[in-house]
Amino acid sequence: MTVIGERGEFTLINQLEKILASSSPQARVGIGDDCAVIEGREGFWYLLTCDAQVEGTHFSLDLIPPRYLGKRVLAVNVSDIAAMGGRPRWALLSFVLRPDVESEWWEAFLTGIGEAAETYHLEVIGGNLASTSSAMVFDVTLLGEVEREKPLLLRSCARVGDVILVTGFLGESRAGLAIGQQGRKEEKERYWPLVERFFSPTPRLEVGQFLGGLKERIALIDVSDGLLQDLSHLLEQSKVGALIDVEALPVSPLFAQWCEEKKCDPLPFLLGGGEDFELLFTLPCALAEGVRREIPARYGIPVHRIGEIVGEEGIHLRRGNTIERVNPQGWDHFQRR
Amino acid sequence: MTVIGERGEFTLINQLEKILASSSPQARVGIGDDCAVIEGREGFWYLLTCDAQVEGTHFSLDLIPPRYLGKRVLAVNVSDIAAMGGRPRWALLSFVLRPDVESEWWEAFLTGIGEAAETYHLEVIGGNLASTSSAMVFDVTLLGEVEREKPLLLRSCARVGDVILVTGFLGESRAGLAIGQQGRKEEKERYWPLVERFFSPTPRLEVGQFLGGLKERIALIDVSDGLLQDLSHLLEQSKVGALIDVEALPVSPLFAQWCEEKKCDPLPFLLGGGEDFELLFTLPCALAEGVRREIPARYGIPVHRIGEIVGEEGIHLRRGNTIERVNPQGWDHFQRR
Repeated sequence: MTVIGERGEFTLINQLEKILASSSPQARVGIGDDCAVIEGREGFWYLLTCDAQVEGTHFSLDLIPPRYLGKRVLAVNVSDIAAMGGRPRWALLSFVLRPDVESEWWEAFLTGIGEAAETYHLEVIGGNLASTSSAMVFDVTLLGEVEREKPLLLRSCARVGDVILVTGFLGESRAGLAIGQQGRKEEKERYWPLVERFFSPTPRLEVGQFLGGLKERIALIDVSDGLLQDLSHLLEQSKVGALIDVEALPVSPLFAQWCEEKKCDPLPFLLGGGEDFELLFTLPCALAEGVRREIPARYGIPVHRIGEIVGEEGIHLRRGNTIERVNPQGWDHFQRR
Repeated sequence: MTVIGERGEFTLINQLEKILASSSPQARVGIGDDCAVIEGREGFWYLLTCDAQVEGTHFSLDLIPPRYLGKRVLAVNVSDIAAMGGRPRWALLSFVLRPDVESEWWEAFLTGIGEAAETYHLEVIGGNLASTSSAMVFDVTLLGEVEREKPLLLRSCARVGDVILVTGFLGESRAGLAIGQQGRKEEKERYWPLVERFFSPTPRLEVGQFLGGLKERIALIDVSDGLLQDLSHLLEQSKVGALIDVEALPVSPLFAQWCEEKKCDPLPFLLGGGEDFELLFTLPCALAEGVRREIPARYGIPVHRIGEIVGEEGIHLRRGNTIERVNPQGWDHFQRR
């Protein structure tokens, strides 16, 4: 008898898609992008996404303070709206709670939710509370919107010859998780910005909206599962491949310092770390240099050119003179239970 | 140190509402009705709802076959759309799965999901899969729609003098759960329609849409938590009370037979059972008799007049010549862990 754990998330999703394939789809975009897209109020598409944070899988109460967790459960969903160039509008919160959770914890958690709702101009319009005696689950559904006059920034928009760019720095969130889990007090203090990157990710809403405003052909995805995993989703949808320059991957000074101190290779963090919630996007070559300069100038967020789209499918890593084809799954060193 | 379990679901929801109260709400209806209501495509309101089925709280794998569970996780949400007089359109599925679940189970579950999606003309446009080593959670967000020219059938629409009606029969689902959990094989077979009411509830979509089409002032809610609980939500929103005729509560012949055989009082099942997913609604007195006759004639679904809206707050039960004020919580004999 086989069990579903042997199949992996994406096989299960494919099965779901197959069974649910609609004979006459009414949505503009269904399963397979950062958000689903449906007809919205006049002049707008509505964007829909949901993501759950599961105790024991995505977080543990020992590690993440409740106020940060409250912010996090909204932020990871806002990042999916950012990855469509949209603006978050409404939220539904579906929480599965253990009755033995302390009131103090719950109130701090709610404070975090309230702060994030204010930051992202999100209106919480509904939800559901259920109880459990085991792991808590914080599931959030967001509804955002994007102007219809803007082209949709889909994963399927990449073409051979496009340049691949990424905002911010990679690997920091995964390093922050390791420090939070195993680091001593002194290490946590020194590398607090990395820990905070895990606790409280910053969705790149302004960058997503800026890219939409360009009205160009841009493929966009957020880096939630790790660079290689997320890039592979984009490549599959676009039916193309990618050549990535390993030396061009963005390493922050603080993360580099931590890697040196711990004598650990930064590469698995950069390629497979995940949860940085940066934006990964492809652009026609002629636009790339302007965009790479304009985003930091406008928003103070660095942008790095990390490779290009090629015709040969799969992901190819260039280090010096060698090129190696990699399997995204193989780089998932941090695979969750 | 207090824990949140001491507060009860509705206190926690109130706390959430307070922290999240928007200074400039953009939604037409926010937290507090069966669905949230926002501006939709031209000529329509969009209705949003989410509800989770939690292993160990709402279901156990020993009891409910996977195909029924698949139908159920969609049906309980469709019932909230029915309670707004709407039409279901799109679904997002957020599932937290245990990797050790058998593939056969998962495929039967998906079959149930697929069948329900077809029944309710629902398009599944997105979702999320996460893994857990403890209780599974099946969370569903639905987006439905209702014509803007129809008045919204809100919980707050009841007025003193209105008649209170309910579709179908009450208590059957809770009896079915008891039979499923404790009944011997022979009992299960004889009372299978009751068990099936629990396994596979039937949302009253056509009745909700019919009531909306009347373009009258109607307060509407679905019976998910039990008659008294759900009635009390409606009364609170409308700032009125109710006088319920105990003798008028709808008891099906099969449920009556089971109660007699088990020598158990049907009243706790009728008042506190829950999960019947019938519609409970109030109407101006002049309309009541016509509606009570028209719904069975059109849809073959019985409708019973069970009481009236009064000015004195709370729920008052009339049995013969005695009237007793009841506390909805006190009737929740089946309170979940």
